[in-house]
Amino acid sequence: MQAQLIALDWGTSSLRAYKLGPAGVVLEQRSQAWGIMHLPTEPREIAGVLCTDGFELAFDSACGDWLDAQPGLPVIACGMVGSAQGWSEAAYRSTPVDVASLGQALHGIRSLRGVQVHIVPGVIEQVGLPNVMRGEETQVLGVLQGLGPQVLIGLPGSHSKWVEVVEGRITHFDTFMTGEVFAVLSKHSILGRTQQASEQFQAEAFDQGVRVALSNDGQRGVLSTLFSARTLGLTAQLAPDQQPDYLSGLLIGHELAGLPDSAKHQPIILVGAAALCARYQRALALCGFAHVSLAQEATERGLWQLAQAAGLIRPVLEA
Amino acid sequence: MQAQLIALDWGTSSLRAYKLGPAGVVLEQRSQAWGIMHLPTEPREIAGVLCTDGFELAFDSACGDWLDAQPGLPVIACGMVGSAQGWSEAAYRSTPVDVASLGQALHGIRSLRGVQVHIVPGVIEQVGLPNVMRGEETQVLGVLQGLGPQVLIGLPGSHSKWVEVVEGRITHFDTFMTGEVFAVLSKHSILGRTQQASEQFQAEAFDQGVRVALSNDGQRGVLSTLFSARTLGLTAQLAPDQQPDYLSGLLIGHELAGLPDSAKHQPIILVGAAALCARYQRALALCGFAHVSLAQEATERGLWQLAQAAGLIRPVLEA
Repeated sequence: MQAQLIALDWGTSSLRAYKLGPAGVVLEQRSQAWGIMHLPTEPREIAGVLCTDGFELAFDSACGDWLDAQPGLPVIACGMVGSAQGWSEAAYRSTPVDVASLGQALHGIRSLRGVQVHIVPGVIEQVGLPNVMRGEETQVLGVLQGLGPQVLIGLPGSHSKWVEVVEGRITHFDTFMTGEVFAVLSKHSILGRTQQASEQFQAEAFDQGVRVALSNDGQRGVLSTLFSARTLGLTAQLAPDQQPDYLSGLLIGHELAGLPDSAKHQPIILVGAAALCARYQRALALCGFAHVSLAQEATERGLWQLAQAAGLIRPVLEA
Repeated sequence: MQAQLIALDWGTSSLRAYKLGPAGVVLEQRSQAWGIMHLPTEPREIAGVLCTDGFELAFDSACGDWLDAQPGLPVIACGMVGSAQGWSEAAYRSTPVDVASLGQALHGIRSLRGVQVHIVPGVIEQVGLPNVMRGEETQVLGVLQGLGPQVLIGLPGSHSKWVEVVEGRITHFDTFMTGEVFAVLSKHSILGRTQQASEQFQAEAFDQGVRVALSNDGQRGVLSTLFSARTLGLTAQLAPDQQPDYLSGLLIGHELAGLPDSAKHQPIILVGAAALCARYQRALALCGFAHVSLAQEATERGLWQLAQAAGLIRPVLEA
């Protein structure tokens, strides 16, 4: 089947490449470790030139053969590749944004082999405290089809995003540093000293953590409840191998307690790694969020739609 | 002047020794690096025995000469020296506690040189989420004289404590991991990457952090507002050398937002390092806490009173 688009999900730690066919069907996909902070360094010849640029090298290794086989295939990319530390900076677009406005704002960079790479800009919200995202906007836009007029999309991760979408437009979003806080506390704080990794998910401890976040004690905030991960251990109410999932539940619970109450009866879509989404789904249920579902293939679908909006995909091939 | 008591403030990272005279006046004091996690290791002869025990070595180096000069001087100690990782475990006493009940619960350990060391137990609160302290109880009891019937005592630090005292009894307390969270985020998270140390206290940035914690944005919790330390930098609203104090104000603001509203019109006493107490005093004013003052010499005064309650100090010398 003839490909129509190369779509790159290019983040800090990895580079995923998709070869998409008609209607955006995934013909082939690859995942490589060439995130923008981990680029290849070994010089190689590209288009007859000895190349030392890490972005060029990574790009060529991700999809050079696809372009050789089918020159002129359009290329679109999202994620940190468009940040100030990326290949070329695609300036943030302010909320509200939708597929049409973002698709018309792609930022082009000409690669060594002459192919134009179209980078999706990140999104900034400047009302109140500023908030930014890069990559998540594409995932959000990729999962909207078939949803109602108002939906909340959660993207759990190192920096979780919660994105409000009204009539197909991203109107507001928040960031919670839950995943990174969990990682640094487990690795570098006193809480990690008594933690022991568990082979199995400690569901009871996780739920207990969520409930503490929702309790009266939780009202004092996470800086206070954190200490319970230690004291419950000291008082033998939490075994060492329960402590990591207790802390995970506690932090996720505090994150969810920060969502607007109105979200309780709104459809919520989770996008992200399956295991992490399962934790969030469990915690959301405990917090009383009623309508939660999971989305798949968010990035490749988002990139497909943005490429369409940008006119990168030739309609004749789509028929 | 004849000494009446040796008082040791023996924590995780340091050992402070006080030689106290009549009415608890400080005759001499020393500070050494021999916290319970940093004990001396070089063997030395003590009381005719070659000693390798770190606690004995530290004890001897802190006050061996005072005891040589005045054998029979009573010794009292508080802090992590009484923890499970300490010299000898002094089991926690449950709230409520006061000087009398805690003074009667001292835990004795006989040192190599034959001197009995009386260790103040830590305090545990078992209502709701468990909470523990070791050392702070002594400081709290040390500052109560002359205060009203109801007072809130704040002990800022790595793990800040907020202790409610009613009629001289510690009835309830909370712990906030503010200081440690600040340290690990600055050192190990993405927030540290754009921070630059400032020679001067960045008052404006600190105040801004406190205000964000108190704002509507702050309602979503610290996991959410944390990200603003990055985005305000990205949008050039916060210089690199303002970011540490912004984060400090933000975290302290969230801590203070977790205090009960009733504390707004209560007397509040701060105990701790001067520079840190100054930050808290500033933040408390911004948060609308009206009656804040600082206490001095809390530990030595607390140890003196506990020694009195325990009958360690001979009344004849006190006259």
